[in-house]
Amino acid sequence: MLHRKIILAIADGLGDRPHPDLNNLTPLEYAKRTNMDRLAAQGITGMVDLISPGIPVGTDMGHLILFGYQPTDYPGRGPIEALGVGMEVEPGDVVLRCNWATVNDEGIVVDRRAGRIREGTTELAALLNGMKLDDHVQAFIQSATEHRAVLIIRGNGLSDQISDSDPHAPNDGHPYHEVKALNDSEEARRTAYYLNLFLQQSHALLKNHPVNIERMKQGKLPANFLITRGAGQAAHLEPMTTRMKIKGSCIAGESTVLGVAKLAGFDAITDITMTGNIDTNIELKAKLALEQNVSNDFVVVHMKAPDLKGHDADPLGKVYAIERFDEMVGLIADQLPEDTYLALAADHSTPCEIGEHTGDPVPVLIYGPSLRRDRVTEYTEIECMYGGLGRLSGSQFVTTLHGLMGCVKKQGS
Amino acid sequence: MLHRKIILAIADGLGDRPHPDLNNLTPLEYAKRTNMDRLAAQGITGMVDLISPGIPVGTDMGHLILFGYQPTDYPGRGPIEALGVGMEVEPGDVVLRCNWATVNDEGIVVDRRAGRIREGTTELAALLNGMKLDDHVQAFIQSATEHRAVLIIRGNGLSDQISDSDPHAPNDGHPYHEVKALNDSEEARRTAYYLNLFLQQSHALLKNHPVNIERMKQGKLPANFLITRGAGQAAHLEPMTTRMKIKGSCIAGESTVLGVAKLAGFDAITDITMTGNIDTNIELKAKLALEQNVSNDFVVVHMKAPDLKGHDADPLGKVYAIERFDEMVGLIADQLPEDTYLALAADHSTPCEIGEHTGDPVPVLIYGPSLRRDRVTEYTEIECMYGGLGRLSGSQFVTTLHGLMGCVKKQGS
Repeated sequence: MLHRKIILAIADGLGDRPHPDLNNLTPLEYAKRTNMDRLAAQGITGMVDLISPGIPVGTDMGHLILFGYQPTDYPGRGPIEALGVGMEVEPGDVVLRCNWATVNDEGIVVDRRAGRIREGTTELAALLNGMKLDDHVQAFIQSATEHRAVLIIRGNGLSDQISDSDPHAPNDGHPYHEVKALNDSEEARRTAYYLNLFLQQSHALLKNHPVNIERMKQGKLPANFLITRGAGQAAHLEPMTTRMKIKGSCIAGESTVLGVAKLAGFDAITDITMTGNIDTNIELKAKLALEQNVSNDFVVVHMKAPDLKGHDADPLGKVYAIERFDEMVGLIADQLPEDTYLALAADHSTPCEIGEHTGDPVPVLIYGPSLRRDRVTEYTEIECMYGGLGRLSGSQFVTTLHGLMGCVKKQGS
Repeated sequence: MLHRKIILAIADGLGDRPHPDLNNLTPLEYAKRTNMDRLAAQGITGMVDLISPGIPVGTDMGHLILFGYQPTDYPGRGPIEALGVGMEVEPGDVVLRCNWATVNDEGIVVDRRAGRIREGTTELAALLNGMKLDDHVQAFIQSATEHRAVLIIRGNGLSDQISDSDPHAPNDGHPYHEVKALNDSEEARRTAYYLNLFLQQSHALLKNHPVNIERMKQGKLPANFLITRGAGQAAHLEPMTTRMKIKGSCIAGESTVLGVAKLAGFDAITDITMTGNIDTNIELKAKLALEQNVSNDFVVVHMKAPDLKGHDADPLGKVYAIERFDEMVGLIADQLPEDTYLALAADHSTPCEIGEHTGDPVPVLIYGPSLRRDRVTEYTEIECMYGGLGRLSGSQFVTTLHGLMGCVKKQGS
């Protein structure tokens, strides 16, 4: 069978709704789409519900599906974040998302983000990383962007059925919570015990760390505690590259997307100039996408900015982000090898008028060799309703791409 | 997140097929649709299969789905009817639909509807209601419209796996059936025993009731027996209002629809002028829909007449019923608040040429704030095939509505 390749360009949060500031057009309708419309006219389009109509998904879930998994494969945000920041995750690890926070002597969370700390967190994490909680249980921690960190508790017989130490409340006098088992299992009780132990020992060490002493001297809040949330246990998920017998690569600035990519067995490629924002280096992304295409079967190239502008309720900003995405698509399309399909998709809708992810379907497009073309000539939420792919689930869309590659196993004989 | 509301107007049995009496148009195509077409031009449309293409559904199942449940949640017609006529239903109750019937001394069902009895059934039910069948098992009965009644057998260890006493045969010499257990369980045997006991004791009491003595004097058939069918056991179904954290209200004339509404946790609102027929009070329905919208998140307003005319194989009557539905829709649309979507749907198709429910999909429409508009400008079975929603299951359609309201939980984070 002819073997072909995919470059999938994902515009995060692309889908939107008509907006009064844009003459009641969606940002995608309003934007100049020189390159995307050219592909639409020569390709096939449709609408995708990542899970099912009306159901909103997070960036992690949306990408998990676009990398080829089922919604039920979702491992929790923790393991994805851990992979995204470059930690090794082993099956059975309990992974938590954390904030560096400031607590006072009474255990009150004075600031959930330790004065929005940005510097020194690498040193703080280094102090705690690898802490032994007994002969068989160990903690690993790594700082992420700004006040965020990822914590792994590693050992036999642990469970993610534990509560958060994060009080999930504003900075107005709430104490951090003691971590509790969420069920009667020995595993959950053990995990809660070790996590509480870690938090106490960390607190004692952090209080006196030079980074914090210096912060206090400068009148800043010290990062003297970790508030934890979203415990997830890393299951063994077969890498998609193994399952489909393909090689994959992902170019992105955002750690969540890079985390899903690693889970799926894709090489995670990033660069300091991929900012995860509107000023991201699209020329580099396009160049890398084409380079990675040479030695890989499935290349994902991601742009975060449309989602950010949706969350910011900034329709004109989103238009601009989409026009930059269109430029990136053009740079790739202009040098697309003959054996490669270029597909466009989004992980969810983030309408500017809502400022949050919604369950509205997203437009998708496939362009490339010997495709059935539909009559659609514009890549928009409205025109793609009339696309030849119809309305698909995210999983059906990805299987369509795998099918075009020729790597889907025939059923029957 | 922005919180929005829904008014869902349901035209029972709306879907149809082209009919020779209507110039080969469907009743919906043939009807004047001034208001519905206006909404179609400004909204988004599609086709809905309540369960799946080709599968006909009953009014109870169709509404159960339109209120947000899955087909597998179906509790049987009995519990729905009981709620619809205002009976309290407890988990474990075995609920049956009954006819007041006339049997002779040999047990032959002389008339399945006791001469289409309309008066005196409340007194007959009062005589039997609360009958103790032993220290722990009790029967409750309430008359419904015309010759119909609802019976509840309440006690521990009962089962709905029992046969009907209704012979389901014309009035030409068939005996009523003894109720039998449908499986080997103790529960089914017990329930059959108690139900047979109730039917015998009722027969003895009914024969000599003044209502029946008077009927016989007037040459009418006495209502001296209950033929039972459709045993269902009330399970605990979580109210949809609880699950979605919303407040709901339903305006309808038909007890089945009101029963489903109560099951779903919706307030059931009716009035003597809501006749369940073509002369129903559409002005009052529209007024109540708008009033209920103020304090509720999801309001259902229902009209039965299109279904009746479909069963009557009366295409012109169905056209007229649809035009009255269109008027009602107009009254609501003219005063629709800005935060509210108006959706149109049907619970199933009842084509005039068939006279029964069929599995043909039904047209749906959503109109309201900042929706993606499709190109469809007419609300008909044909035009909505080209609608931007595509072809959805009933459950996907309702999740789309819940999604627009902003009450669907995000998957992933």
